[in-house]
Amino acid sequence: MHTISVKAFGTDAPASALHQMQIDRRETTDNDVEIDILYCGVCHSDLHTARNEWRGTVYPNVPGHEIVGRVTKVGPNVSKFKVGDLAAVGCMVDSCRECEQCKKGSEQYCEKGNIQTYNGADKHLNKQTFGGYSERIVVDQDFVLRVPANLDLAAAAPLLCAGVTTWSPLKHWQVGPGQKVGIVGIGGLGHMGVKLAKAMGAHVVVITTSQSKVEDAKRLGADEVILSTDEAQMKAHANTLHFVLDCVSAQHDVNAYLKLLKVDGTLALVGAPEHPLPIAPFSLIPARKNFAGSTIGSIQETQEMLDFCGEHNITSDIELINMQDINEAYERLLKGEVKYRFVIDMQSLKG
Amino acid sequence: MHTISVKAFGTDAPASALHQMQIDRRETTDNDVEIDILYCGVCHSDLHTARNEWRGTVYPNVPGHEIVGRVTKVGPNVSKFKVGDLAAVGCMVDSCRECEQCKKGSEQYCEKGNIQTYNGADKHLNKQTFGGYSERIVVDQDFVLRVPANLDLAAAAPLLCAGVTTWSPLKHWQVGPGQKVGIVGIGGLGHMGVKLAKAMGAHVVVITTSQSKVEDAKRLGADEVILSTDEAQMKAHANTLHFVLDCVSAQHDVNAYLKLLKVDGTLALVGAPEHPLPIAPFSLIPARKNFAGSTIGSIQETQEMLDFCGEHNITSDIELINMQDINEAYERLLKGEVKYRFVIDMQSLKG
Repeated sequence: MHTISVKAFGTDAPASALHQMQIDRRETTDNDVEIDILYCGVCHSDLHTARNEWRGTVYPNVPGHEIVGRVTKVGPNVSKFKVGDLAAVGCMVDSCRECEQCKKGSEQYCEKGNIQTYNGADKHLNKQTFGGYSERIVVDQDFVLRVPANLDLAAAAPLLCAGVTTWSPLKHWQVGPGQKVGIVGIGGLGHMGVKLAKAMGAHVVVITTSQSKVEDAKRLGADEVILSTDEAQMKAHANTLHFVLDCVSAQHDVNAYLKLLKVDGTLALVGAPEHPLPIAPFSLIPARKNFAGSTIGSIQETQEMLDFCGEHNITSDIELINMQDINEAYERLLKGEVKYRFVIDMQSLKG
Repeated sequence: MHTISVKAFGTDAPASALHQMQIDRRETTDNDVEIDILYCGVCHSDLHTARNEWRGTVYPNVPGHEIVGRVTKVGPNVSKFKVGDLAAVGCMVDSCRECEQCKKGSEQYCEKGNIQTYNGADKHLNKQTFGGYSERIVVDQDFVLRVPANLDLAAAAPLLCAGVTTWSPLKHWQVGPGQKVGIVGIGGLGHMGVKLAKAMGAHVVVITTSQSKVEDAKRLGADEVILSTDEAQMKAHANTLHFVLDCVSAQHDVNAYLKLLKVDGTLALVGAPEHPLPIAPFSLIPARKNFAGSTIGSIQETQEMLDFCGEHNITSDIELINMQDINEAYERLLKGEVKYRFVIDMQSLKG
């Protein structure tokens, strides 16, 4: 298979800094779209994978799955895109397309495992997939998204992961007008959860451990903010929420948040703490509560979310960085020093 | 308020044996049904409450909430029952009737707390409610159930708690034909879960730690039995079940059973282990799985379950005991030496 060599930023080992390297992209095949990457968001998963914290990283690793750019080439069977179009790629670039989940349009839950944008199994080049920290990417049109032209492109990049990862559970558990929705953990995911749940018509209650985030939560759209360290506040809101989106990646006491749910309420975890979370049976049994998890979203959900964000002019709060600043950005990410998402200006790699 | 004195079996302190005592029942008020108790099942909750293991037991305590008997008296407003009818009482004898849950017929999830059949707050006599280990009980007609005449009355008693506690989640999570349903823990609850899920048309898979229960599980109606101690069997059944009903009251690793669920599957806990159960985030997130709890069932669900059991001739597997044998029965219950429910022949108390 013909390939082209493009500049990228990646790493060769868990403890190594990211540095510039050359990687191969396939030439566009019949169904492919080649995209010149303009912006790529920085997700905590990038760091986990670069450092092999979830095990299974194949090196070299090129992270990045919040990709926005412009189409530079299309294969002969491509009907959805033409050269010059805006286009985006999220966390997946393919799936088996044959299983029950793929057939009903839930590729993120592909029974054989979807093909992730980086560190996935690239069936074309027979090696690991390389992500968006690069000049260009080539992706099957079925996994390429359209980007509403009115959105700030840099700030739209995080919608491809942080956006759809919060959108999908909010839609799945049918959040909308008349409902009180709790968002726990105001970071890259949580701040999108607040904006989306609010725009979907819900009454949004942010629950935070940090007094310093109260004002910001309101600015993002929260109707109410509960300080979780204040027992009286937590007690006053017991049994009041229809749904809680839990975006916390650190270990935390989920039982405290389950208490806030009404009968039949669900708490959906989208953050991924490393160790098991202890759940008291009596947190669930007496009011038929649910503790669930959710990951990213389908291609259809991603497109619906992007279109919704276009209509409501919703993007992420970002800090734009150069590709060369990625290692420093990772350190700041670990300290929570970003409001709320780093986005790489890919011009810095191409210059 | 006028009362009548009836014989009962109860206890005065956590460490005391149960013994015969006299308790007061109210005279039937306008909406009340007086029932001569024929049989009363022995639920593990009886033991927990008698021994104050869940805290909050008010003494003297008279347990029993799987009650079947015959109507001996009705108040002037009672339309659902007449003297001589078979009648039953389960875990609740009243609720607030005004909250969102009561209004939609989910009294078990009454926001103010339903009034439990024993150790509840008796608004009539302004003391704790007394359960079915007694000659008679007086209950508002709205909380009295009809019993299909074709059922063995002694074996029908456990339907009032063990039956509806498994029926309610099976119905709530819409178990039926075309679905594979796992039942974990074959005891008082689990053996009813197998019978009911099978009669509802599901393909029933029993998961047990005990080789000795394999044959019995099949006799109860299981289509397949998995030995959970056999890793190869557990792995072969990974991602195959639509729903799991977890009837285990001891500490256990729920993650092992969550692995058996398909995408979007729910594991509902109806057993109540004392300590928190550790749940790995990756047991839930990658396939949007749900860990839920459920408790008893509504009055409407209880009636539907009784009618269904009448149609399908389903009762509990029981061992009939005399009231005077209750303390020994509790010891055997603790050792799991009952297949699968003790039922008290209340004639032994009246004689």
